[in-house]
Amino acid sequence: MSFDELWADLSDVGRDPRSGGYRRFAWTRADAELREWFAGAAARRGLDVTVDRCGNQWAWWGDPDTGPGIVTGSHLDSVPDGGAFDGPLGVVSAFAAVDALRDKGFQPGRPLGVVNFCDEEGARFGIACAGSRLLTGALAPERALALRDADGVTMADALAAAGRGTDVGRDDETLRRVGAFVELHVEQGRGLADLDAAPVAVASAIWPHGRFRADLPGEANHAGTTRLPDRRDPTLAYARLVLAARDAAERHDAVATCGKVRVEPNGVNAIPSHVTAWVDARGPREADVRAVLGELSSLTERAGGAFVEESWTAETPFDATLRDRLVATLSGVPVLATGAGHDAGILAAQGIPTGMIFVRNPTGVSHSPAEFAERADCLAGVTALTAVLEDLLGAPA
Amino acid sequence: MSFDELWADLSDVGRDPRSGGYRRFAWTRADAELREWFAGAAARRGLDVTVDRCGNQWAWWGDPDTGPGIVTGSHLDSVPDGGAFDGPLGVVSAFAAVDALRDKGFQPGRPLGVVNFCDEEGARFGIACAGSRLLTGALAPERALALRDADGVTMADALAAAGRGTDVGRDDETLRRVGAFVELHVEQGRGLADLDAAPVAVASAIWPHGRFRADLPGEANHAGTTRLPDRRDPTLAYARLVLAARDAAERHDAVATCGKVRVEPNGVNAIPSHVTAWVDARGPREADVRAVLGELSSLTERAGGAFVEESWTAETPFDATLRDRLVATLSGVPVLATGAGHDAGILAAQGIPTGMIFVRNPTGVSHSPAEFAERADCLAGVTALTAVLEDLLGAPA
Repeated sequence: MSFDELWADLSDVGRDPRSGGYRRFAWTRADAELREWFAGAAARRGLDVTVDRCGNQWAWWGDPDTGPGIVTGSHLDSVPDGGAFDGPLGVVSAFAAVDALRDKGFQPGRPLGVVNFCDEEGARFGIACAGSRLLTGALAPERALALRDADGVTMADALAAAGRGTDVGRDDETLRRVGAFVELHVEQGRGLADLDAAPVAVASAIWPHGRFRADLPGEANHAGTTRLPDRRDPTLAYARLVLAARDAAERHDAVATCGKVRVEPNGVNAIPSHVTAWVDARGPREADVRAVLGELSSLTERAGGAFVEESWTAETPFDATLRDRLVATLSGVPVLATGAGHDAGILAAQGIPTGMIFVRNPTGVSHSPAEFAERADCLAGVTALTAVLEDLLGAPA
Repeated sequence: MSFDELWADLSDVGRDPRSGGYRRFAWTRADAELREWFAGAAARRGLDVTVDRCGNQWAWWGDPDTGPGIVTGSHLDSVPDGGAFDGPLGVVSAFAAVDALRDKGFQPGRPLGVVNFCDEEGARFGIACAGSRLLTGALAPERALALRDADGVTMADALAAAGRGTDVGRDDETLRRVGAFVELHVEQGRGLADLDAAPVAVASAIWPHGRFRADLPGEANHAGTTRLPDRRDPTLAYARLVLAARDAAERHDAVATCGKVRVEPNGVNAIPSHVTAWVDARGPREADVRAVLGELSSLTERAGGAFVEESWTAETPFDATLRDRLVATLSGVPVLATGAGHDAGILAAQGIPTGMIFVRNPTGVSHSPAEFAERADCLAGVTALTAVLEDLLGAPA
């Protein structure tokens, strides 16, 4: 069975033996293995692989220049200690849907593309959906290339080390091939599980969301000999920021998370010289999210620090016509908004008709080694994606 | 001039070009360079170098087995981004004092040792004064050897990689040679600077102090899709711990510092699965420090975590007879207690007559690249140490 084989092939790539989670970061050795896997899966199906100038991989059934075509797929990279499903489920399901269409003798009326967007999680360089943002021009090439990972390596150097050029940027030739994009993804909350109605849903919109960085200055000093009034300890401001983020999110119907921090020099007996804290904030309404961020910005500035926007994505509603067509094809499955960003959202913001299919997540856990979806639900996802593609590919371009 | 030459030789070893501070961690390449420097400085003075089973280096003027002798020195390792003075000033001043004694034609009546205690800061494996604690048996060898650094390397493996054996442990033969120990050290607070009376002081006692670890469990999850009530976010408990440490220290006349933290997986868009936080607590009175720690332990346990003692050192008064003799030799310089731990404190706790000489620190800043002492004050320290050694070495064993 094709889905299980594809899935099993991926299960060891980039897995951390201690956590059981995945560490599949952009342009690393694990990423190279994932890209080889993608090329191999495409080759075994006779699909032509192209790589756009930003490094995203495209496998085409039919000549993409006779399109525009219908594209499906997702990403293969992960957050630190991420789960197996976030990303790979969409790519594996795409190949499995190609197999299902061929098994039933279907002949597409327009080209079908399977895509692997690179660097979706932003785990290495800090900007999510870097591959699709570069492709669409939403991220400036010079800014992206100068981003540094935790070891100080720039994206430019990482691309070069991975054998890629640095001629990244908006790629109109590639974008013209995409008549519509449908991304299948494991749900990352409990929307479907709580409804208890169906194994799949269709997305309505992606919440507005952003990443912000608080630079909190201090003064390094000895933990034993420096009197409390003489200290400039930035961990105090950091602690207030963490608690304020939660409190403000509760009051404003949003979510805010301080998942990453860097303390310098991070020694037990040294008052830190600097704390860098990152805040991820999202919610159904932009005004509410902005209210949370405003409070955190004020708090940071009162502490003598700077609160810097690293990325911001406005609310992204998916194409209403395509959404309704997906729901009709799938016999009235639920429609849900999501707090997670996706490459589908980046393409939708460019006016490309875009939709998403979510597969039920029984615990709602994601970005964790414990992320899970039932095999039966994953297969229901493949069936749904196959039906959607059959419908869209049968229509004239 | 010997002091300046010795000082200049050390200035580039293990220096981080970005911070300007030192990263001289036990059993690293930088540490090996420092040990070579020590052996070279001893050799140029015709001192015999021995290394005890714990890796501490001893340079002897005279046959140590005719002792017990008088020992001076300090350590050469550093905290992350540490200053130039903390440790090295005591070793450099020791060699400079040997030179000064010889310049005046002094013939010691008993052996003089210069020591470089290894791994004093505990920056790599988390236990301060590891070299002197192992030497005296205050730290169990099996516990020390199993300690791991941030990369998961054990102390046993680090010793082996540095060409050392792992037969560490109490070394009576070495300890018998130490009739008295006088450690010169830069002051790490503003006691001397605030008194504005003298460039050097004599230590009365080391405050009781300890290191504790709070293990705060959470549940990894997606930062965008996990509803606030469904979260188990350990950064909230960590933030409360940081603020409670400061608040409790203020109420109990103590100091407490959360200088080091490890967040897992430390991704911007992932709720952390675990936070490990370290607390350094000290103060003039043990009951007060214990009161602070009791509050932090309760808070950690209420958050479902564990509050673990990594090390504890009771108040360590220095030998009163030796202290008075140092003060008399130095014409009534001030006597100060200190919040910083030292190898001198470890030896004092073993009943070895031990004293300390502090050199004025104009800003009080330590454990920072900005740590500083005036050259004139350092030379006054050498003069003071020379006088003290001349006095002690002239006396019969």
